Amino acid sequence: MHPRFLYDLDSCAMRRGLDVAGDGWTLRILREAVYGLTRFDDFANALGGGRGVLSGRLKAMVETGLMARQAYAEPGQRRRAEYHLTDKGWDLVPVLLALGQWSERWTPSPDGPTAKVTERATGRPVVVAMTAEPKARPLAMDDVRVTLGPGARRIG
Amino acid sequence: MHPRFLYDLDSCAMRRGLDVAGDGWTLRILREAVYGLTRFDDFANALGGGRGVLSGRLKAMVETGLMARQAYAEPGQRRRAEYHLTDKGWDLVPVLLALGQWSERWTPSPDGPTAKVTERATGRPVVVAMTAEPKARPLAMDDVRVTLGPGARRIG
Repeated sequence: MHPRFLYDLDSCAMRRGLDVAGDGWTLRILREAVYGLTRFDDFANALGGGRGVLSGRLKAMVETGLMARQAYAEPGQRRRAEYHLTDKGWDLVPVLLALGQWSERWTPSPDGPTAKVTERATGRPVVVAMTAEPKARPLAMDDVRVTLGPGARRIG
Repeated sequence: MHPRFLYDLDSCAMRRGLDVAGDGWTLRILREAVYGLTRFDDFANALGGGRGVLSGRLKAMVETGLMARQAYAEPGQRRRAEYHLTDKGWDLVPVLLALGQWSERWTPSPDGPTAKVTERATGRPVVVAMTAEPKARPLAMDDVRVTLGPGARRIG
């Protein structure tokens, strides 16, 4: 028997993270939030699929504390729902950026990256990386900017 | 219209990464590989679900280059399949470690982390973090060790 089975690993942090965000759509919604979407209708437009399904997914993200829901109304329109990433939600974004960097490393876009991550203060490129350097000052999402890169093809 | 819709973002690296690894089970299989599993029967035991489903999922991971399949046979037994992470697969592990660190940050385990990530050369704790420091030497998976932490409860 492999020694892994000597331990109860069901509540390991990786597993708990997967239970919250490893479902195949939380990170897709998060990606749209990184690109700036907040409105239910915009998420629906970007992600496709049924509105009821999306509504349930956003509700789950509110319940796990990744999103906060607020109402807004444009003049003369009925109230609609907006979803904003919470601090906990923003803090998950580096996971998605790490996934993007992995993808760009192993299957680079022919036209260059669609999104660029840079340090706000200096404009230097940001990487997500493992470090054991105690003096390393990790950047927070507030310190970085995600902008469109050369691979973002304009269609509109 | 939100400016996000002026661009074709379907081939952004985050999206392409999600297409490969954001399905809800690739990272679960990866987690078991980090804990040392290689044999089909062990993955089946750890992950539950049908063997046909698991077989298809491992096959997909071989096709996307995350896993390599090899045969092994114990004396007197028929040949069975073993799955080993490739370099590309190992390089995805920091994404999972980042997810685990996020989870531990926002919902810490009462008994301490189940898994610890340390630098092989120094034993120092490893974090996955964003950095814009050009001199930062990112660690590779070969440089780090994942071991069980105080929260790993022995059951066997």
